[in-house]
Formats: sequence, structure tokens, C-alpha cells
Amino acid sequence: MPMPASVAPGSGAMPIDATFAVESRGFSDARLDRAMHRLVERISRQTGIEIHGGKTVLWIECGAAGPPYPALDEDESYRLEITPSGATIRSATVTGAIRGMETFVQSIDPGANGFEAPSVRIEDHPRFAWRGLMLDVSRHWMPVPVILRNLDAMAAVKLNVFHWHLSDDQGFRVESKRFPKLQQLGSDGHFYTQAQVRSVVEYARDRGIRVIPEFDMPGHTTSWFVGYPGLASAPGPYEIERKWGIFQPAMDPSRDETYKFLDEFIAEMAALFPDPYFHIGGDEVDPAQWSQSKSIQAWAARNGFKDAHAIQGYFNRTIEKILARHGKTMIGWDEVFDTTLGHDTIMQSWRGQASLADAARAGFRGLLSFGYYLDHLQPASVHYAVDPLSGAAAGLNDEQKARILGGEACMWSEYVDAETVDSRIWPRLAAIAERFWSPASLTDIDSMYARMEPVSRLLDWVGLEHRSNYQPMLERLAGEKSAGPLRVLADASEALGIDARRDARPYSSLVPLNRFVDAARPESATVRRLELDARNLASDPAAPAELNAAFTLWAANDARLHPTGEIAELSKNLSIVGSIGLQTLEYLRTGQPAPENWIAQQTEALREIEKPSAEVTLAAVRPVRLLVEALARARTNGRNK
Amino acid sequence: MPMPASVAPGSGAMPIDATFAVESRGFSDARLDRAMHRLVERISRQTGIEIHGGKTVLWIECGAAGPPYPALDEDESYRLEITPSGATIRSATVTGAIRGMETFVQSIDPGANGFEAPSVRIEDHPRFAWRGLMLDVSRHWMPVPVILRNLDAMAAVKLNVFHWHLSDDQGFRVESKRFPKLQQLGSDGHFYTQAQVRSVVEYARDRGIRVIPEFDMPGHTTSWFVGYPGLASAPGPYEIERKWGIFQPAMDPSRDETYKFLDEFIAEMAALFPDPYFHIGGDEVDPAQWSQSKSIQAWAARNGFKDAHAIQGYFNRTIEKILARHGKTMIGWDEVFDTTLGHDTIMQSWRGQASLADAARAGFRGLLSFGYYLDHLQPASVHYAVDPLSGAAAGLNDEQKARILGGEACMWSEYVDAETVDSRIWPRLAAIAERFWSPASLTDIDSMYARMEPVSRLLDWVGLEHRSNYQPMLERLAGEKSAGPLRVLADASEALGIDARRDARPYSSLVPLNRFVDAARPESATVRRLELDARNLASDPAAPAELNAAFTLWAANDARLHPTGEIAELSKNLSIVGSIGLQTLEYLRTGQPAPENWIAQQTEALREIEKPSAEVTLAAVRPVRLLVEALARARTNGRNK
Repeated sequence: MPMPASVAPGSGAMPIDATFAVESRGFSDARLDRAMHRLVERISRQTGIEIHGGKTVLWIECGAAGPPYPALDEDESYRLEITPSGATIRSATVTGAIRGMETFVQSIDPGANGFEAPSVRIEDHPRFAWRGLMLDVSRHWMPVPVILRNLDAMAAVKLNVFHWHLSDDQGFRVESKRFPKLQQLGSDGHFYTQAQVRSVVEYARDRGIRVIPEFDMPGHTTSWFVGYPGLASAPGPYEIERKWGIFQPAMDPSRDETYKFLDEFIAEMAALFPDPYFHIGGDEVDPAQWSQSKSIQAWAARNGFKDAHAIQGYFNRTIEKILARHGKTMIGWDEVFDTTLGHDTIMQSWRGQASLADAARAGFRGLLSFGYYLDHLQPASVHYAVDPLSGAAAGLNDEQKARILGGEACMWSEYVDAETVDSRIWPRLAAIAERFWSPASLTDIDSMYARMEPVSRLLDWVGLEHRSNYQPMLERLAGEKSAGPLRVLADASEALGIDARRDARPYSSLVPLNRFVDAARPESATVRRLELDARNLASDPAAPAELNAAFTLWAANDARLHPTGEIAELSKNLSIVGSIGLQTLEYLRTGQPAPENWIAQQTEALREIEKPSAEVTLAAVRPVRLLVEALARARTNGRNK
Repeated sequence: MPMPASVAPGSGAMPIDATFAVESRGFSDARLDRAMHRLVERISRQTGIEIHGGKTVLWIECGAAGPPYPALDEDESYRLEITPSGATIRSATVTGAIRGMETFVQSIDPGANGFEAPSVRIEDHPRFAWRGLMLDVSRHWMPVPVILRNLDAMAAVKLNVFHWHLSDDQGFRVESKRFPKLQQLGSDGHFYTQAQVRSVVEYARDRGIRVIPEFDMPGHTTSWFVGYPGLASAPGPYEIERKWGIFQPAMDPSRDETYKFLDEFIAEMAALFPDPYFHIGGDEVDPAQWSQSKSIQAWAARNGFKDAHAIQGYFNRTIEKILARHGKTMIGWDEVFDTTLGHDTIMQSWRGQASLADAARAGFRGLLSFGYYLDHLQPASVHYAVDPLSGAAAGLNDEQKARILGGEACMWSEYVDAETVDSRIWPRLAAIAERFWSPASLTDIDSMYARMEPVSRLLDWVGLEHRSNYQPMLERLAGEKSAGPLRVLADASEALGIDARRDARPYSSLVPLNRFVDAARPESATVRRLELDARNLASDPAAPAELNAAFTLWAANDARLHPTGEIAELSKNLSIVGSIGLQTLEYLRTGQPAPENWIAQQTEALREIEKPSAEVTLAAVRPVRLLVEALARARTNGRNK
């Protein structure tokens, strides 16, 4: 995952043991050498074999280095051939070889005689050139190790753009030497030094990943104003924002000093970030400060700017020119879009394919983020069904379609911190990565989930903590008691996203994210397996035992957990769901028809139980509902006989 | 854990939230500052709270720095007082303050209104001054991060000596600049550079831990001879040993060149390791090379050395003098002990309290390691019952008892590697640490286990991988299948130690340690809880539900797992045990007496099932046997009525 463009299985398999080696022939450079070294380390971790080399070789035949820094148009294609006696990756560039290595490592499986890579011929290339993840490090601080392990994981699923949301109302996260009060007063001490930024860019480059900085402006800029209140459209003083939402402070678009500041700031950042693209945000500008300022209103009237939209248009055009002077092309969110901008500008759309299609028709390039908002904690299947070229974009001609470069998943960090962020991004991002890389025809949900599960485990070995932090977080909640029953409850629950949490309690950046909802996963793999069992009750001989074991555990769990506080109701409900499940299984097993009103009562009970509680939903309801529905069908069929 | 010498609980609790801070008053130095900083980081990780400080303070009142490098006789005592409004640690030295901080961090619990540290007054000091862990890094290589995280964990349970077994037949693990072929030819490239050694020593020092190097000699030295065959008692050439056992190569005790080499080598190592003690091993010398060498035999005859023991005695006395010249005092295993040695020499006993007592009577200081061999994978309760001053040592007078400095747990690494070693050391070492630190009167096994379990979880936050590697290892074995059923089997199994594995298959350092036995834990916490449930069946209302849930899972597990290979029989047996458990519970629940021959049959079946299989034992048998025994008693009682 992502599924290659073309796969032709062979017979036999290449053994992966202590004699395995990775070697290059023809071209080689330091970046390729490092990638090969990482590959051997990864395979050692993943298999538990200390690899010495000396026999079975994966050959890397790479044509050339490719661009010195990963480029939007670079060739990422590769061919991978695995046979029982060895394997070969052929690619035009080092980045292509890196993509092929990820496919190789995913192909390794435990066979009857130890680990092996089954014989195969793969030809592969990406569908979209821009396949990204946006990470907000302002609302909650994400230290460097969080960034690095997510870059490793991105590379594992062939993503190639890391969009770094570096400033917002709640924190300014990069060291500026020209304007040091930005980070000194605007970050609570949580910012990346320029040396750290350079090391992150270098780390990403090694993995074929571009780094795009975003400095959101002219709104979402409160943290800038703590150190430089003169940039704002109202006098101040300002404090770092602790709450979430859209706030009034915005840069003063009428003063030359604002643009002089931004010119010098952008000059500094343009030198720090080598990518030719630069994101200025531009979303959600509250016009209050502009309309309340007499001088700004007078300036707008002088220049014929009728409204805030026109004012922001002027701001954007000015920034666009500044960026161009420093060799950068502008990216902005939907709101930035305006046909007076240069055609190089890229629009990133959170609104949907329609605005993307409009922009493409007007000659602009675009990226889709609508449908890929990870902080909503929707199932992977929802994201998987969204295609940058579907909906309104499906009607575009080929030239216009070519302007849609790809997409980016977005992880806004109001309700995640360094501890939980991995579990909110992964493994769901792997499904989005497949949408960006693989053929559009790939749409089967069951196949996606069946492949996402092993990829999720593989990402453990890559260094992510999306799975490993689960048990410790539950144990933290359990205190000195065994965390077993709490885990049963969490396995049966799914955390709700930003929409549900926003109104659940008065959150701010000072509220710890260490509660049940933070430990619970967005999507329960346990429940998904039980849903499969419920659907395959008749055909899969293990299914009844699986369901019976789960329902028994659930039914007994409330007595084992003895919960207090916010999860008391949830726990009681799980045991009710378990009991309904056991009774339903019993009806199905014996073939005895259930009373009609019993079915109606259980259906109603499940509907009630499924309502949000403690900011999670009880996913356990779903397989039980499938069984009750089967029972209702059996009853109807029985009556018709 | 370890339990303090004196604990007086108060009322109320100190809240641990974002306003918590650690501050020193009076004395402060850089080492204390670093310890305080680490404490805040640890509490942040452990609670999930980003700590800003500003309100509730833990004050550190430390009298002085203490010795610049941790010393055998240094004052490690501290007092800790926690009240609802704040806490104070008072100590004479920084090391004492560090010990107190570990007690503080262990006292933090989730309360009704968030995390808190319950009010308490603690006065605490160690029972033994020498509380160590020996780690063998020769049989399997342990990279620096493994060492560092284990030092953190040692500090968490107040251990203060890291004994580093740095050379053996299978590898020489330290860079020597004077004799570079030692590591160049004797280590497969797996050795610590001198810079790494210095950083480890510094890291340990920061945590109040001394580092004692061991270079085993004159036997266990094959790896030295690969680069320097002239040191050996037979011509060579030599190769790094890949198998386990006692091998013939031994240093030539008759040549001056041997002692000249060792003098220069020890001079180099003495400068690298600041501790005044130096371990020369001295165990398990095979006399074959000595008796087969005409020149050594002639030399021995000339000097009146009757046998190999006398030859080794001469070798030891010579090394003792070399060590003394370089400012070091000698430590050796039992075999080294000889009353002709200087009285400073410390004997480390793997043979038992009797040899330790003999040495103490003869005026020598000693350390107990007998009973603390972690690689035997015995239950923590076994180690906990061993006391350095019990058995033969109990008869010593006070002056002699004072010569028994403490003890060391030993982790030999034939059957562990960097991935599994944490899980073989921890949490059992915490029980041994309590034996070394806490009052001798503390012997309750249930209390020990009840306290060891939360400490084991706490060690997750310290950075150990003893728990976090479990699920990934099982998933590696499961491949693309769900690892759930495999985990049920592993939770019910206990890995066997070196005695059982030695003869199970032809092991060597090239055999990967990635099988079921390597994933399984030495002691099953799941089974331990079920044993408690079985004993408390009548008094604990949750016990029947717990047992029923577990037995149901076990009974259904073989059908879910469908195992092949070495665990097939084990899996079948688990389901049989589950079924016996369910039937027994049913007899007990209904009060219906079980037929006498049914009880006899199940007892016999359980006995058969408990025999080792796939290098593990099925611990699941134990709670079921307890229930069958209860049933048998109920039958007898019923008959007597």
C-alpha cells in the first residue's frame, strides 16, 4: 500500500535471512547509500534478524541522481523484480529507487521456512505528482522527533510533500534571526531553531519529500503580534491565544511597514526552505479590525477597495510579488483565490472539488484537501472515497485536469498533541496516500482495510507511535488497577473528532489531552473484524467463536471495570451490547425465531447506545446490529416459507 | 518500589497539573539541575500533562554535591514530605535527592480530580551499598540506546552499580587504541568507541550509578585471540566463537608478554573507567590448553604450581598487582577467591551464600549473584526470596556481615538480543532491587507482585521496551493475520530460560531470536491475576466473571488461531485448559459435586499439559489447577458432612 500501478506475481519466493544484502550497481551516490543502509536496518527490525549479508542480494540499478532537491515534476517511477535467487529495482532517479525499496520492504512476509519476499514483477509510478500531509504545529507543539518519525512514515507510503503549518494564533514556531521576538515572545519557548529546520529539510530530502512552509497571513497571526504589535491592525498589546477558533487580530494591510517587515521575513525564510513553493495560508480572516480602523478604512476608500475581500486581494498580490522577488511561488487556501493573481499561484482547497475545478478552468493549479481532514476522525473509507478528479472536477478537460496536481491530508492540532498525533494521522493516511498514488480504479473498501491493517503494523517498525502509545495511555488512566477491562472498552469505542469535541467542554491549549477519548482510536480494528465476522457468520467457521468470545468479554466487562466518572455510562452500555449480541447469536445458532418485539426493542436500544458519550461513540454496536438485522431477515424469510 | 525504610501516610494529596514545578533551595549544581529537569519531563510523559510550572512546588533541599563520581560509601538517604500545598525532598547529597525524586514520581496516581501525589512522610536509606545489574554485551551485542534506557530504569528502582561484561569468547566490545585488533578483529564491528564509553559513564554518573567494567580472564577470552593469538596458551589462529559454552582457549599465564600486554591494556581501561573497582571475571577456566602445553607445564613445575587452580592463583595475584598500580581494586567471581589475594579484593558469588560467608569470615568483602540470574527466567518471587544475608550468611557476626556489600542481578545474553533483553530483565529486576534496598522484613509475595505491576508500567515512561515490544513481536509472527489469538496464547505462556533452551535446538549467535518463545514473557501477569481470582473466587465478586471471560477465550482460541509449526500442540492444549476451566467453574457455581474420576482425569491432563513445549510452559494451567483443587476439597468436605 499504496497498490502499484501494475503487479504480476511469479512463483517461489526470495528468502530473507541473515545472508540478505542490498547493493547498487551502475550509479550510486551518498543519498542512495543512506537509503540502502536504512532499508537493511528496517528489515532487521521488522524481521528480528541481524542481517550480515553475503548471499541473496537486492540490486539497485539507478540511472542518475535526479534533481538535487526533490522536485514537483521529478520521475518517481521504478520497476521491481523479485525472484527466488534475488531481486532488482530499476529506476531513473534515486527517488524512484527509494519508492521501490518501500514496495520491497512491504512485500516481506513470514513464510513456512522463515521470512521471504514472494516473486513478483512490479511496474509503478504515481498518479499525482503532489501527495502531501499538512501538519499544524502551532495549536499543539510537535517536537522534532514527532516530525522525523512522521516523515519516515510518509516515505513508507510514498507521500512526497510535507506541508508545515508553522504559525498561527496559538504559536509562532520558527526561529527568526531578523525578528527574534517572533519566537521569543510568540512560542512559549516551543519553536524550531534554524539548525533544526535545516536538519528536518535534509531528513525529508533524503526520503524524497519536499518541505513547504506555511506562514498563515494576514489572519491567524496573533502570535506574531505578541512581539511585534505594530504589525496588527489595532494597537494591542497581544497575548498568545490559548483557545481555538477564528480571532480578530489581522495584519495591517495599509501600512508600508507591514510589507517591509514581511519582505525581510520572507527573505530569511526563503533562504531557509529550499522548495520553490511557499504557503501563505490566507484562510479565515476576520475583517473586524480592518472595519474598526479609521486609517485602514480611509486607505481602502482611497484605493477603491470596496470590502475586506478586496483588501485581502491587494494584500495577496503584494505578498505574491515579494515571494517572486525571493524566488518563491505562492500557495494559499481557497480564500486567496482571485483571478488577479499570477497564474503560477496554487490553490489548496478545503472547500471541495468545485472550487478546485473553477480555479483549473481559470488556468490555476490546485490541490485538494477537502475530504482529507484527518482531525475530523472519520473512517479511512470516507477519505478513500474522495478523489481529486471526481465530483465537479470530473467534467474538466485533460488540460484542466492536469492542473490538479494532487492533494494533501490535513492534521489540525487543536485536539492532538505530540503523544496522540500519530494515532490521529495513522493508519488512515495510508488510505489517502493510496488514493494519491494508485490507479483511480482502486475503490474496494474491504481490500483497502485488509491491506491497511498490516501496513499499520509495519509502521510500528518505521518508528511511529500510533499503536504503541495506546496501552500506556490506558494504563495511565487505570492507575494501579489492571488496564485490561479499560482496554476492552477502548477497543470497542471510537474517538470523535473536532466537531464533537468543540462543544463538549471548554478546551484550550492548557487542557491535557490524556482522557479516555484521547486514548481511544478514531477507528476500531477490533470492531471492524467483528463486523466482517458478522457478515460472514455462515461462511467463516471461526466467525461464531470470534463473536462469542468478544460478546462474552463485553457482557462481563462492566463488572470487571467498575468505572466512575465520564465513562460509566459507556461501560454499562458495552455490557448491554455484549448481552444483546450473545442472545442474538443464540437465536441464530438454534434457528429459533426471535419475537418480533424483542428485535424491535434491541434495535431501539442499539440506536440509543450509539449516541456520543464521553466524546466517543460505541462502535461495538455495529456488529451486533448486523446480527440483529440478520435475525430480523431470518424471521421474515421464515414467515414467508 | 523499592519500599522505603519508613512511610507515614498523611491526609489529602498534592495536585499534579500544569502548574507543578520542581525547584531547589540552598545548594544547587549542574547535576542536580539536570535531574530536576528530567523529573519534570518524566512526569509530563507519565501524566500526559504539559507542565508549565508556577504554583505547586516540589522543593529540593540538598546539603552538598557529594562525591564527584558516585562512591560505594556515599550517603544515599533522603526524606520526602508531601502535603496538599507542596512537597520537599531533603538529602545530604545530590544522589540522595535523585533517589527521593524517584520515590516522588512513583507516588503520583490518578485521583478523582486528576493526577495527585498523596500526602506522606518518608524517611529512606538503602540496606545495602552495592545494588547492581550485570549485563553481558558479548554473547549478543547491545547498542548504546539499550544501555542508556536500562540505566534510566535502574535509577528508577534505585540500583547503583552497572556491571558491564564487556568481553567474552563471542566478542570484544570496547575500542582499545593501544591494541586496536581487539575490537577490529574480535567484535564483528559491534563495539563501543571510547567516546561512547565516556558518555555512558557520564550518563550513569548523572543518575547516581557507578560503572564497573569486566574483562573476563584468563578464560572466556577467544575474541581477544583473533587479533592477538600470541596471548593464548596454544598457537591458533582463532575465530570469534559463535556457540555457547565453556571453551578451551585461555591466556598464557607463563609468559611475561601476557602480563606486559595486560598491564598496558589495563592502564588504558583504568583511565577510561573512573570507578576504583575493576572486574577480571576469572570464572570457568578450562585447563586443557595449560595441561597440553609443554612450556606452561615446565613453567608451572619450576614455580611449584601443582594444578590449574594454583596457576590461576598466580595469574590473579599478578593481575591484582597490575590493577593496584593503576589505582584499581580487583573483583572476581567465586573461582578467583584465594586467601593469598589482598583483602581489598571483592568476591562476586554465583555459587551461593556459603562461599560468600566463607570469604567474609576470611576477611573478604563479597557480593551475592547466586539466586539473581535473570537469564534463568524464574519468577520474581524466587529472586525476591533470596537474601544476601540469609542461609549460610545468617550465622556471620556483625563485622563479617558488614563485609557483604550487597548483590548484583546477572543478565547473560546467550538467549536475548537488543530487542528482547528489556523483557528478560524487567520487571523482575525491580523485585531484586527491593531486596537490596528495603528492610529485610519485607517478604510478602502478593504485596511485591501488587506493587511490581504498576512499577512495570511506570518503566514504560522511563523508556524501556520490556512491554512495548511484545505486540510487535507477536504481529511479526502473525504476518498479515490478526495477532489477537496469538497474543491470547502468548499471554497464557511463559518463556523458559537458558537451562531449557540450551538443549532445545542448535543455537548460536547467528540464530535469530524472533520466535514465539522470544516474544513470550518470563512471567505472565495475565495468569497471575487469574490465580488471584481463583484463590479469591468466593470473596471477590469480579473473580468469576474474570475467570469465565479468560476460559471462554482460551477454549475458543485454537479454532481462531489455526496454528502450524512448533506452537500447534501448545495452542491445542490452551483450548483444553480453557474447557476444563469452564467445566470446573460450572461445577463450583452450581455446587454440584464433580465425579471423583473426572477430577483425577483433569488433574492428570493438566500435569501433562504443563510440560515444556516450544520452549515455553503453559502457565494457564495454574489457575485451572487451583480451581480443580478447590473442587476436590469441596467434594471431600461434602462427603464429610
